[in-house]
Amino acid sequence: MSAQPILLVGSVALDEIVTPFGEVRDAFGGSASYFALAARRFAPVRLVAVVGTDFPEDDLQLLRDEGVDTRGLEVVDGRCFRWGGRYGDDLNSRETLYTHLNVFEHFHPKVPQAYRDSPYVFLGNIHPSLQAEVLEQVRSPRLVALDTMNLWIETARTELLRVLRDVHLLVLNDQEARQLAGESNLVRAGRRLLDLGPRTIVVKKGEHGAALFSTGGEFALPALHLADVRDPTGAGDSFAGGLLGYLAASGETSGPALRRAIAYGSVLASFTVQDFGIARLRNVRPEEIAARFEELRLLTHLDAER
Amino acid sequence: MSAQPILLVGSVALDEIVTPFGEVRDAFGGSASYFALAARRFAPVRLVAVVGTDFPEDDLQLLRDEGVDTRGLEVVDGRCFRWGGRYGDDLNSRETLYTHLNVFEHFHPKVPQAYRDSPYVFLGNIHPSLQAEVLEQVRSPRLVALDTMNLWIETARTELLRVLRDVHLLVLNDQEARQLAGESNLVRAGRRLLDLGPRTIVVKKGEHGAALFSTGGEFALPALHLADVRDPTGAGDSFAGGLLGYLAASGETSGPALRRAIAYGSVLASFTVQDFGIARLRNVRPEEIAARFEELRLLTHLDAER
Repeated sequence: MSAQPILLVGSVALDEIVTPFGEVRDAFGGSASYFALAARRFAPVRLVAVVGTDFPEDDLQLLRDEGVDTRGLEVVDGRCFRWGGRYGDDLNSRETLYTHLNVFEHFHPKVPQAYRDSPYVFLGNIHPSLQAEVLEQVRSPRLVALDTMNLWIETARTELLRVLRDVHLLVLNDQEARQLAGESNLVRAGRRLLDLGPRTIVVKKGEHGAALFSTGGEFALPALHLADVRDPTGAGDSFAGGLLGYLAASGETSGPALRRAIAYGSVLASFTVQDFGIARLRNVRPEEIAARFEELRLLTHLDAER
Repeated sequence: MSAQPILLVGSVALDEIVTPFGEVRDAFGGSASYFALAARRFAPVRLVAVVGTDFPEDDLQLLRDEGVDTRGLEVVDGRCFRWGGRYGDDLNSRETLYTHLNVFEHFHPKVPQAYRDSPYVFLGNIHPSLQAEVLEQVRSPRLVALDTMNLWIETARTELLRVLRDVHLLVLNDQEARQLAGESNLVRAGRRLLDLGPRTIVVKKGEHGAALFSTGGEFALPALHLADVRDPTGAGDSFAGGLLGYLAASGETSGPALRRAIAYGSVLASFTVQDFGIARLRNVRPEEIAARFEELRLLTHLDAER
């Protein structure tokens, strides 16, 4: 079976990133950008997002060169969504310097006619009512995945719970899982989230890896051993991109396929964090992905021969 | 090959433990106690430690009933080592209420003649110069393992570095690994510790599992998915006991044997945290250990069939 297209909605942004290893400004970013560049390794990506007139032509060309379908990328009068963040010495703490919604403030996703039959849908981390608007515009997708964040869990819980009823796969980080479930034990939290609608919960734990809770079983995967981490921005979005990309490419949703998908998500995220912004992710080659997947298998297998 | 004996030095204590789920006083504890009860599932244990005249006869009998060799357990005038700790709501934070060294203050380990040919040695978490005193009293052991803590890393670094030169396997937690290596990236820290002497470094990460750094390769293992955790006290010591116990029972030190040993350590720790003090650990049956090992394999395998 050939790779099926993924309809993606999320943010495309210009970022300012400060880490102990350097800083960048006006860097191509946003959750949808990282997701698209990761998922594109496996399956076609159809982007729905908005940018301002200040969005660099080079960045638009980059998306096209990567084969991302940008017919759903609106360009409207105004400035792009801009985000600035500063990381602490060990890269585990992050301070948000600013979040300027700009053109994103009045965004309502419009799904082009040509996208409406997309069998895979990824509702990136935007307001749950916008995520719901996307679902209203598509025809019975095979798999709907959703990412969210603490802001929406706190301020739009009702809308989030409503859209989750139509979601198959929920991707979120450990803090968000605890917060959404109202449960400090992560295992209990993961299991409890299955009551909200999704039949699969994937919890991202950063340097501690990822965990799967599903009606079919559970899985725990450590992160690759990375000695050189320069910028964690976009790691979670790259993870989700690798995960959903692999599922769309394989056409499977079995337990073993989900395990491999989580491993590919982890592999894509591992490239992203090794350089600033999308610098490493955009240049990753298929043979590098395959090699790192094998490295992850060897690192984690209890029955490994070495 | 039959299981080889392990010479164990460490603390035997009476603990006060307060968690959101209850509290106990004068509970049989100490790092050597947890280690012994875990390791005993796999191999004979020869204990070197000290207690006061207030040490309950029942606790001594418990050790003997478990088959622990107590000829090296000194009883001296005075009170036992006593420790009190209180855990926060999510069990991830711990406050030490008090540490009364009592008879431990003037302790110098005396290794009985009958113990001196022990092929496996575990130097539990005590002052590094006492750990060195034990090594001076044994004859060319096959494998020496050592545990330590932030207190000794800060106050007895020179002595610790000296004894580490004669150690094959270093077990410590993630914070201690970072502190001892002077490196915030845990992967770099683990690799750097190999320069200190040990050919194998095992890093305990609590609910995030464990990691192996060795001259022969690396391994990462997540923790079992536990929905019911009541008291984390002794988890790290039970982990070390399961780890070294398995190595002493198998007689192997290959990469695959180290991976299995770490998994057995994780399994033993998982029982310990499910009840207060040693309550669950002392009652664990061989078939329960085997079942949980299999559960861990299924939870972590990328190629699992379900």
